[in-house]
Amino acid sequence: MKHIEGGICAAKGFKASGIHCGIRKGRTKRDLALIVSETRAAAAGVFTQNLVKGAPVVLSIQNLKDGHASAVICNSGNANTCNANGMEIARGMCDLVEKYLQIDHEDVIVASTGVIGQEMSLGPMVYGMQELVDALSDTPQASKDAAEAIMTTDTKLKEIAVEFELDGKTCRMGAISKGSGMIHPNMATMLCFMTCDAAISPALLQKALSENVVDTYNMVSVDRDTSTNDTLTIMCNGLAGNAEIIDEQSDDYAEFKRALFECTSYLARATAADGEGATKLIECTVTGAKDKATAKVLAKSVICSPLVKAMIFGRDANCGRVMCALGYAGVPFDVKDTSVTLRSEVGSVLVCHSGNGLAFDEDRALMVLDADEIYIDISVGNGEGTATAWGCDLTYDYVKINGDYRT
Amino acid sequence: MKHIEGGICAAKGFKASGIHCGIRKGRTKRDLALIVSETRAAAAGVFTQNLVKGAPVVLSIQNLKDGHASAVICNSGNANTCNANGMEIARGMCDLVEKYLQIDHEDVIVASTGVIGQEMSLGPMVYGMQELVDALSDTPQASKDAAEAIMTTDTKLKEIAVEFELDGKTCRMGAISKGSGMIHPNMATMLCFMTCDAAISPALLQKALSENVVDTYNMVSVDRDTSTNDTLTIMCNGLAGNAEIIDEQSDDYAEFKRALFECTSYLARATAADGEGATKLIECTVTGAKDKATAKVLAKSVICSPLVKAMIFGRDANCGRVMCALGYAGVPFDVKDTSVTLRSEVGSVLVCHSGNGLAFDEDRALMVLDADEIYIDISVGNGEGTATAWGCDLTYDYVKINGDYRT
Repeated sequence: MKHIEGGICAAKGFKASGIHCGIRKGRTKRDLALIVSETRAAAAGVFTQNLVKGAPVVLSIQNLKDGHASAVICNSGNANTCNANGMEIARGMCDLVEKYLQIDHEDVIVASTGVIGQEMSLGPMVYGMQELVDALSDTPQASKDAAEAIMTTDTKLKEIAVEFELDGKTCRMGAISKGSGMIHPNMATMLCFMTCDAAISPALLQKALSENVVDTYNMVSVDRDTSTNDTLTIMCNGLAGNAEIIDEQSDDYAEFKRALFECTSYLARATAADGEGATKLIECTVTGAKDKATAKVLAKSVICSPLVKAMIFGRDANCGRVMCALGYAGVPFDVKDTSVTLRSEVGSVLVCHSGNGLAFDEDRALMVLDADEIYIDISVGNGEGTATAWGCDLTYDYVKINGDYRT
Repeated sequence: MKHIEGGICAAKGFKASGIHCGIRKGRTKRDLALIVSETRAAAAGVFTQNLVKGAPVVLSIQNLKDGHASAVICNSGNANTCNANGMEIARGMCDLVEKYLQIDHEDVIVASTGVIGQEMSLGPMVYGMQELVDALSDTPQASKDAAEAIMTTDTKLKEIAVEFELDGKTCRMGAISKGSGMIHPNMATMLCFMTCDAAISPALLQKALSENVVDTYNMVSVDRDTSTNDTLTIMCNGLAGNAEIIDEQSDDYAEFKRALFECTSYLARATAADGEGATKLIECTVTGAKDKATAKVLAKSVICSPLVKAMIFGRDANCGRVMCALGYAGVPFDVKDTSVTLRSEVGSVLVCHSGNGLAFDEDRALMVLDADEIYIDISVGNGEGTATAWGCDLTYDYVKINGDYRT
């Protein structure tokens, strides 16, 4: 598995673009993105489980029912959720793609991110569509333009591409992603659009994607707020020339899943690190649990705890916060077998052993917690269950960003 | 029901005291509290559901099994949780009460609050016990001293007392309470000690208390972190002279429950308002839900959302945050029937109707959200289910307090 340049334009037959069309007044950031496959692609998606769903989510689920798609259109600056005319606008975006690119509107994936419940109009997108289509390109820069166009409070552009081999053919897979606040994906993610030139059946593609998010995006939390617009989609157009993957037991399917994991786990981690206001990534690994499901719940409880998040921000090696978060997670484990180590590139400190807090060198702990990436290693016994979750610290800037998000 | 002075010393036959014995070095705040009933009292308690329990919680549950108690001893400054010698210290505290007051150690309720997982010794309490016992008094000031001695990051002393009538006799009930951070009670509360001079059977007392917390303390959240030490206990010594309440259907039992609700709902609300770093109380009421259980989940999801909490701090009338929190609560409701109103003593603003955001006067919204107590009124349809939950805003000071809690 090789990491390569090019993001969503790395795979054969995919073009992208991102422009500023003026959805959010007074800002010149790109706010409209387009991704197009040269041929109709096998496609799959996973979406938010929030009961309040953005209209684009509802329409994309519908459009993906036949397992195929040819394009993605996405705006930022206004989320098209809780709008009386939401479905009209979502459908209007697909119609624009049909009009300009002769792609059936039912083969378009549509998404939207930004402020919820704010009045919205199709106007800026109608106005910008020609420019968006003219800008379509398969260059690495085009992937970056599209990635920028879907960003909201993100501070870092998130993209990845990998190269792998299937059936003797070189295949490429790429993704762009956004997400910084309102991040607590549930069976899906914020926004992540993936492209791939491998051939795979729509059914296996959906299966691979659905299984993947459980261990990647669903293990990330910035603030426990599951968004109304979480969307992760992938289009596989088969232009790499490999024989279509149709066997779940095949080596090719396994290799395809590895490529998928490489991309989504990288972006999931990047999403946590770029959490709103975050100064530190928190990676919590639980080992020794009864089973994997138990380990997952424990790891996620720790990275979700506001008190753990604040203590990491303050570089305060407070083992009680970690023990407390484990204890209320709601799954069984043996407190008396629990140990907690705080670790970074600088070194590590054992702060809890056999369920009891330990005295430790405070200066050393401060040094360990000074790093940008903090690992919380927890052992809860001798079981087989292991899991990792990613989060970030809780900072003054998170409060600042969200105390006045709309203005 | 009349509110009166005196806190836990208002009821007949109860004395209290609170002193500084030096558990937390370098601070002179009172850190050891004692409450004593003149006679052995019917007693009940509800405790944290956190799997990691403080040793005092484990011992108090054991000591309350026979439905009776005569005293409460509680320290602040160090939580006696995740300590190798935790049970020894908890038992030691009960033994001190036995030694100085000739009360069986099994009739003592013990509690502890402060930093978790820090080494702890009985020393300061052994040293201070004579002074604590000498200070016992039934004056209103003694209740305040005890209330201060159980405080940690609280900024306000929390106590209440009410007078009511049972069986032609005047009865009094009082309580002191603490809790500011790590507040998300689950079937119990942080620390709340209640006294009452009514006569009631231990079985009915426990039933009344267990049912009560579901609608009061369990509807409060500061930070979704369920503490390891949540404890709510009540002692009823019967000195008011009423006939013992033994009938669940009796008017007296109903009146007793009203007194209980008056005290706990008042303190639960005060706990939310005094959340760590909080500048505003948030009271969220959901009406029109399918049933009460659904309404409770929805109301609690809203007051728990970090994004809702930050928006209230920033006086930002962002209806999308509220809709999002309702949507991921995990219970069914009809989005299309949902309306949201933000309200305070100044006035109100309808921000969402029929599930869609509305345009509103931003200046007016800013004025409404400028108040200290913010009401979020949500209607989700025509059902019978109604519930209220209490929380507070998320502020820079919450991050500050918890970024460096131990030092």
